[in-house]
Formats: sequence, C-alpha cells, structure tokens
Amino acid sequence: MVNDARGTLLAVRETVQSELTSYLTLQREYLSGIGSELIPVCDALESFLLEGGKRLRPLFAYAGFAATGKVATAADIRAFTSLELLQACALIHDDLMDRSDTRRGKPAIHRHFENLHQQEAMNGLADQFGEAAAVLLGDLALVWSDHLLHTSGVENSALLSALKVHDEMRIELMAGQYLDVREAGERSPSVDRSLRIARYKSGKYTIERPLHLGASLAITDEAERKDLTNILSAYGLPLGEAFQLRDDMLGIFGDPSVTGKPAGDDIREGKRTVLMAMTLERADQTSAAKITAALGREDLTVDQIEEVRALITATGAVKVVEDLIEGLLSNALTAANSDEIDPSARELLIELATSATRRSH
Amino acid sequence: MVNDARGTLLAVRETVQSELTSYLTLQREYLSGIGSELIPVCDALESFLLEGGKRLRPLFAYAGFAATGKVATAADIRAFTSLELLQACALIHDDLMDRSDTRRGKPAIHRHFENLHQQEAMNGLADQFGEAAAVLLGDLALVWSDHLLHTSGVENSALLSALKVHDEMRIELMAGQYLDVREAGERSPSVDRSLRIARYKSGKYTIERPLHLGASLAITDEAERKDLTNILSAYGLPLGEAFQLRDDMLGIFGDPSVTGKPAGDDIREGKRTVLMAMTLERADQTSAAKITAALGREDLTVDQIEEVRALITATGAVKVVEDLIEGLLSNALTAANSDEIDPSARELLIELATSATRRSH
Repeated sequence: MVNDARGTLLAVRETVQSELTSYLTLQREYLSGIGSELIPVCDALESFLLEGGKRLRPLFAYAGFAATGKVATAADIRAFTSLELLQACALIHDDLMDRSDTRRGKPAIHRHFENLHQQEAMNGLADQFGEAAAVLLGDLALVWSDHLLHTSGVENSALLSALKVHDEMRIELMAGQYLDVREAGERSPSVDRSLRIARYKSGKYTIERPLHLGASLAITDEAERKDLTNILSAYGLPLGEAFQLRDDMLGIFGDPSVTGKPAGDDIREGKRTVLMAMTLERADQTSAAKITAALGREDLTVDQIEEVRALITATGAVKVVEDLIEGLLSNALTAANSDEIDPSARELLIELATSATRRSH
Repeated sequence: MVNDARGTLLAVRETVQSELTSYLTLQREYLSGIGSELIPVCDALESFLLEGGKRLRPLFAYAGFAATGKVATAADIRAFTSLELLQACALIHDDLMDRSDTRRGKPAIHRHFENLHQQEAMNGLADQFGEAAAVLLGDLALVWSDHLLHTSGVENSALLSALKVHDEMRIELMAGQYLDVREAGERSPSVDRSLRIARYKSGKYTIERPLHLGASLAITDEAERKDLTNILSAYGLPLGEAFQLRDDMLGIFGDPSVTGKPAGDDIREGKRTVLMAMTLERADQTSAAKITAALGREDLTVDQIEEVRALITATGAVKVVEDLIEGLLSNALTAANSDEIDPSARELLIELATSATRRSH
C-alpha cells in the first residue's frame, strides 16, 4: 500500500512539473512579445520553478481532494499546481528579506539579477537592480499563481469555492511572514511566539490550507464538507508545525549537499526558530552567551558552527524538538485514520506526513 | 453637464473611500486577532490608503461600466475599489525599488517601518526591517485587492468575466514595472523604449484595463462587448500615455506643496522618462553633459534644479511633450464621442480625460 501511495505522489509530482512547464512556455511567449528585455525574467523564473522544489503544496491539495473520495482531473491538478507559483513568490521575497545569497545551491533571485547587472555593465547600482527584480519577479509569480488557478479549467462552481480558501490562505501567509520578520526584531526569543509563527507560516499555509483547497474543489458546498475540513485541519495543523520543526533542525544540523543551503544557515542568519528559542530557554548562562554571540554572524567557520551545534544539543532542546515532532506526527496520523477520510486517501496522507517530517532537505 | 459629471465622480470617490474604510476595518479585526504585532501593519495601510489618492482606477472602471449604459450597484463599486488596493501594492513596491523617502509628503512605507524599528530600539538592522515590511505590506495589499474583488458581491458570472481582464492587467503591470526598472540600467535613454513603458505602466494599467474591467462586469459576454472594448482602448491608451507624460512634467516642474514629492524629484532620482529622453535627444553637447551630470544626484540644491529645468525647457522638449499630450487627449476625446459609448457616460469620460492630463498633482 505504501508503495502505491508513493507511486501516486510521484505521478502527481510529474504532472505538476509538466503543467508548470506548459504554463511557463505560454507566459514566455506572451512576455517576450512585449519586449525581449523580459526574457531574463522568464529564464530566471523557469529555472527557479522547474529545477527543484518538493511540490509539497500541490501534493497536499491532491490529498485533500482525494480525501473526498473523488478522483482529480487534469484541470484539478492544474489548479493545485498554482500553489507552486505562490510558493515561488514567497521564497523569492523571503530570500530578499533575509538577504540570503543562495537558494537550492544557486544564487537567490536578487543575487542572480545583481550578477546580470554586473555582467552586462549596466547603468546604476547592481544591488538595487537585483532587489527590484526580486520584488517584481515575486509579484509576477503571485499574479501568475492566480492566473493559473483561474484558467485551470475547473468548473466555475469549483473555482468560486476555491477562491475563498485561497484568499484566506494568502492573507494568513502574509500575516505569518510579517510575524516572522517582526520576530527577528524582538530583543529576546520566545517559544510561544515562534510556535505561533510556525502555525501560520507552515501549519496553515503549507499543509492545512492546501488540503482545504483540494477539498473545496471536490465538494463546492462549504457546509457539506465541514466535517472533512475539520479532520483535515486536525491532520494538517500538527503536521505543519512538525514540518516547520524539521525545518528548524535542518537549518542547523542539515547537510549542505542535500539542503542546498550553507551549513548552519539558521545560525549565520540568526533565525528565531522554535528550536533556538527552546535552546536559549534551557541553556546555562555561559552556553547562552556563546550561542547568542554566534547568531547572525555570517563569517562563522565550520568549527565554530560545530561548536554551536554541540552547545544546542547539550541543552536537550534537540531531543525535546524531536519528541515534539513525533507527538505532532502521531496526532496527524490519528486524524488521517478517522472515518471522515475516504479510505483511498489514507495511505497518501500517511506517506505525505512521513515524508514531511522525516526528510533530509 | 460637466458639473453633473464632476458631481458623479465626486460621489463615486466618496463611495470608494467608504468601501475602503469598511474593508480595512474588517481586516484590522481579523489581523489583530492573529497577533497584536500586526496592528502597525493595519495602521500603516489605513493611513496609506485613506489619507490620499486620486482614486483614478476605480473612477475609470466606473466610467467603463457606465459606457455600457448600465448603472453600477454598490457591489460593482466595491469591485472597482479593489483597484486601489492593487495600486497600493504597486506604489509601496515602487517606492522600495526606487529607494524613495517620501510618498504624498509622508515617509514611504519602508522608511516608516525603518523609523518604527529605531523608535522601538528593536533587534537587528532597521533598514532591513523597513524593506521587509514594505515587501510584505505590498504583497498583502495585492492579496487584499483580490479578496475585495472576490467578496464584492457582484454576480458570479460578472466576477468570472472580470477575473480574465484583471489577471491580464496585473501581468501587464508587472511586465511594465520590470521594463521601467530595466530601463534605468540602460547606458543611454530612448524615446521609443520610454514610450513603450508609458504604454504598459500607465496606458494599459491605469486607464485601459480599469475601463475594460468596468465593462466586463456590466457585459459578461466577451464577444458582445468587443466593439465597446475596442473603443475604450481607443480612448484609454492615448489618454494613459498622456497621463504618464503629465507625470513626467510634474516630476520635473511640479510644485512640491501640491505633488507631495520633493522639487525636481525625477531629476534627483535620475528617472528615465519620455520627457528626459526627448530632452537629451534635442540638447546640444554642453547642455546634455550638464543635465546628465545632474541626473540621480540626490544632493542637488534648489538653484541647481532650477538650472536643469531651464536647460530642459530650452531644448524645446517641454513644448513637444505638451503638444503630444494635447494630441493624445484629442484622440481620446474623439473616441469618447463615438456611438459605441452610451451617451450617459460621455461627460464622465471627458471630465476624466481632462482631469488626468491637466492636473497639478
């Protein structure tokens, strides 16, 4: 059974890839008709969207649809695919805001356009051009995500039903993103605040809302799908938090050759994660001072990062976070096994839950 | 008749203001429920949206609707109002990309949040926080604009009809914005390229597409409104270019107490406008060198700006641009008087055309 679910997810992932490819080909035609200056925009977004990405949000939307017992059509999968374009906006703007240099081992979009500016010896400031390009490419990806959803070919009633979930998801995403940015400005970390951010940025945006979006395309009457919506939340919210906690772990202990990010990236960026808040809550004064001094220092050596990692582990925070992930995962799996979920979707939800929390990138 | 049209536009403007106020009140309730940290986001967007703005795009959408002979309902005006939220996104991101300090005489959004960071002695870099906030507030305004359109209360068929125009408009906007940013990187100015940017950023986005959006809400069948759509383009495209040319003039000769921007702002920013391209095309070598040296220098004195203004006028470019504006306006007015336009909308279109091109801010 597990292998069947894996096979299904793999097939959906391939369809998402081919839908993205088709959509971007159409848009390239359209934009290059406006002006050849727009070709680098198409190149950059194609590379960003087609050369990586776990396609988690479309997969969760697929699972939310399957949970109703219905079978998704090509038009439905096109609608799910739109979530990858929204995610591209979130990542491009995120990298800009964090001033990150890389994404999946390649230059972040703002760095890529900064490099183009320099290579072509353009007029003006290269960093300003890079930043402006990242703002606009993110905006364009956001508008494209809407456009792909609207033109997916799903029935009008399904589209109208999906728009409601979709809007709510995007407002929550922006709110969560702001809370995350705001958190970096706090004088001291907080486990509670970081958990709330994880809930909005990942629990809701990455998992719960994509599941709801899928279900809303299959059952257009909100009242009719209410019980299912609630169970999908009972599955999605804890899983989303667990997903974010796994991200926290990978941001500190992840293998750069697998994550595509520098070793100990969250330490160098001084990111206010739940793991870090728990670490500082538990650390003695000496360790806390050492860790705090290292946070946000981009020039840390591999040895220094290794030292911080050891200090974090020594506080016991890693074990607490791993236990928390297992507990949240177990709650999600209980929900996946409830009667409201169509049996045909159960293995999909279990497979997705496992891969979202036990991943290495 | 002209006074009637003015009265109508004034009344629509007031309705737009009250619809924005209601929408923002609802969103404040929702966001502050997520976290009190989001209150400054609501404050800033309320101030940005309610304390200024000509409401041009909703007014043109209203006129496009009226051109069908139908009378817009409260729901329709709510749908038109969504364009102000889209425009807020464009302006907030524009100011960030241009690194502008002010908007309508007040700090630009990124500066406002930079100031908040300093006032509250927050952790981290104030400018990075300001930039991140501007990225996210722009994104939020974009998502809100969609949400307000979707929840405006217009019939489903009207909404579906509008989505198509709306998506096309937003893709064109982002393309035009990129061309504009890209233009600043060119080694030398070009009248043709600047005119194309004016066509996308202003002709289409500010005037033609809002008119089409209005018409698409009134007549949902695309084929049925084809002739009207074409006439609205014949009115909107030249008018939009004229609008942008007036902007070029105000960016150099505008009165700061009326425009809310520093004197000679486009000179200090080194903006690549049609007016500037025409100036440099016409200037002799000495004048061209003097003007080019002044472009992009933020420390110019009032006397130096006055000197550049005199050099620009001396090339004859100002007269060429003013003549061009009059010619484009005359084309727009001819279209406004054609039979496809319902007589009840004629004076509205004429009044809007005049105020868009003979304005002082």
